[in-house]
Amino acid sequence: MSKPLEGYKVIEIAQEIQGPFASMLLAFLGASVVKIEHPASGDLSRWMLTSLIGGAEVKNPQVSHYFIAMNQHKRSITLDLKKPAAVQVVRRMAESYDVLITNYRPGVLDRLGLGYEELLRINPKIVYAQGSSWGPRGPWVTRPSRDTLAQAASGLMAQTGMPHDPPIPAGIMAADHAGALSLAAGIFAGLLARERTGKGQKVDVSIYGTLLAMQGFEINYTSLSGQEPLRAGISHAFLRGVWGAYKTADGYLCLAGVDDGRWPRFCRILGIEHLEKAPGFDNIGRNVHGDKVRAELEKIFPTRTTAEWLTELNAADILVTEVADYKSVLNSEQARVNGYIRELDHPTAGKVKIAGNPLIFNGEIESTATMPPELGQHTEEVLLELGYGWEDIERMRNEGVL
Amino acid sequence: MSKPLEGYKVIEIAQEIQGPFASMLLAFLGASVVKIEHPASGDLSRWMLTSLIGGAEVKNPQVSHYFIAMNQHKRSITLDLKKPAAVQVVRRMAESYDVLITNYRPGVLDRLGLGYEELLRINPKIVYAQGSSWGPRGPWVTRPSRDTLAQAASGLMAQTGMPHDPPIPAGIMAADHAGALSLAAGIFAGLLARERTGKGQKVDVSIYGTLLAMQGFEINYTSLSGQEPLRAGISHAFLRGVWGAYKTADGYLCLAGVDDGRWPRFCRILGIEHLEKAPGFDNIGRNVHGDKVRAELEKIFPTRTTAEWLTELNAADILVTEVADYKSVLNSEQARVNGYIRELDHPTAGKVKIAGNPLIFNGEIESTATMPPELGQHTEEVLLELGYGWEDIERMRNEGVL
Repeated sequence: MSKPLEGYKVIEIAQEIQGPFASMLLAFLGASVVKIEHPASGDLSRWMLTSLIGGAEVKNPQVSHYFIAMNQHKRSITLDLKKPAAVQVVRRMAESYDVLITNYRPGVLDRLGLGYEELLRINPKIVYAQGSSWGPRGPWVTRPSRDTLAQAASGLMAQTGMPHDPPIPAGIMAADHAGALSLAAGIFAGLLARERTGKGQKVDVSIYGTLLAMQGFEINYTSLSGQEPLRAGISHAFLRGVWGAYKTADGYLCLAGVDDGRWPRFCRILGIEHLEKAPGFDNIGRNVHGDKVRAELEKIFPTRTTAEWLTELNAADILVTEVADYKSVLNSEQARVNGYIRELDHPTAGKVKIAGNPLIFNGEIESTATMPPELGQHTEEVLLELGYGWEDIERMRNEGVL
Repeated sequence: MSKPLEGYKVIEIAQEIQGPFASMLLAFLGASVVKIEHPASGDLSRWMLTSLIGGAEVKNPQVSHYFIAMNQHKRSITLDLKKPAAVQVVRRMAESYDVLITNYRPGVLDRLGLGYEELLRINPKIVYAQGSSWGPRGPWVTRPSRDTLAQAASGLMAQTGMPHDPPIPAGIMAADHAGALSLAAGIFAGLLARERTGKGQKVDVSIYGTLLAMQGFEINYTSLSGQEPLRAGISHAFLRGVWGAYKTADGYLCLAGVDDGRWPRFCRILGIEHLEKAPGFDNIGRNVHGDKVRAELEKIFPTRTTAEWLTELNAADILVTEVADYKSVLNSEQARVNGYIRELDHPTAGKVKIAGNPLIFNGEIESTATMPPELGQHTEEVLLELGYGWEDIERMRNEGVL
């Protein structure tokens, strides 16, 4: 066994990001994941093609960047779970599978006869993972949601943006992905508990709960101090100084604080030795309430290119980096050697670089990725494994079950 | 055993967020965590008091909201790891402890004689978790970093903000916390692998790698299409329409798309029935390229209060929520019943609400939190457990080891 989850079998009944991304992490760690999709619609993410965003003239206009990002290394079977025979297939899977993962609204699978209690009777060791938007209890349990609502309800959106901006989100699907990381973490811990106790586990992880846990730094400040933090603007409510992006001659670089040990050489590189011991430029003055230092630096950084500054500042061990766009990220040597960017051999797009796996075990890094499945590509294969015969498969196809 | 990690013992040699927050998650799940701190300086986060941010007139000016947010439910011992006797204490801990977690720069513990190979000789089943900024290999391995640099280097910062803004970050410590969630996930999976194989595991998880994995949606778009996404602004590069914050009479609400099934009743509630079938207002027109619908909605939402809109829109199952500030979050009933906001009985602040645990197992939710330790509060206790005598402790104190 070379991967932590090798040998585990996972049923995915999920859509879009939280469930699929979590189960892809399980697949990266060696689990065998079967994704169950509706025969007609499939996972919604299949239908967001690059051309829908960028127009017909983009490269690879008929490929879904979205589906690839969430569903590598899985098998796909089609089942219309509104049909009892389809539910029976899942129940048969549950006999020998280890994990069920879903991000359907809480209660949906229960109404289909696929709730935790139900599956526990079939398999007393099953790990049943319910991803959700808002958590397993309370007034919002069945409220629908998508990424941006969790950013709004958790306080993240109010905190992000320049003072004159409306509340704005982190510009990526940060909530859904954080909720997926949590959900995967919960499943790993659930499997651990199951191996230690021999008993099935119900795991509940919500996107809202994850974002609140990620904001203890700010939430606890408000609770203890009685004050709302200022909006973060270019930096962070608590680190308003040498923190955040600065315009250079040809782009932006980003700084993350300058401590007392580094300050003298930072001043030398920037040519502001006269400010090294100036009032308001001490540690707290420049790192926590640093409007003065910011005003000075904004005059200096535009005089040279990002590369010029980075060479000198990095050599002095200053905390600095380029503000990268995605083309730069895709060419990052650091990302490549750690498998954070990997190569996918795509049947129509050819060899393309895509985002990879953040979890490295025992130094084993993979540099290539595996294609996501076509809709229902493995229906027969999986049903035959479960002991169904070809006649069963044909009958279910005729009845619209598959 | 009622919690997944009960019985496991964890050594934490870490600072600030990624390591400490990850090990707090382990503690929430039942692990016994011993935090090792320098006798003089302790974890840097101890020194960020509410008054440093908000001034002397805030409530609880002498309390560190930061340290509380990362270190509940741990024990603290002091050790000056530059002294060989201190290193010997950690090596003795490693004999019977299950996990070592660090976010010191890669190589630092190795140089102290506390690297993975070293500890594996002492305990062939140890799970050794190296959190890092940039990953275990490559040109950036030892580059220093903090949260905002990962936001910048991963593409998140370039993607966030209004078109006229400089690159801005998600306004919270999103990178460090996401890296901590990943690190905790890696440790759970590492423990699982260790229980299955009987062998120690090295786990490497970086903040940069985590943020890249969380941006596959956008990164893969650039790779496949050849285009950089537009900046997210109030919404997201791929969902520019009924997505994001809208100003109301007294605040902001946030919408997350309106699908075909909901669109007719959404139009009725907003009084825009005349646009229901108008050109440019179909599914893609309003959800993907929705400048037209946005312009209409910006005229209508300011006419009523957030609460008025939410009542009607929630009743119609529309994806909508308040843009909450932290005081609102602290009073969220949904957060309370799921343990996402819990009560801490603080010795000087009294009963305060703080952020909680996102991972729920078997429906067990805790509504109270446990205080973080004072610096070195458990030094004697832990050393006595390890078999040291009072004379050893006194000698090590005199030598500045503790």
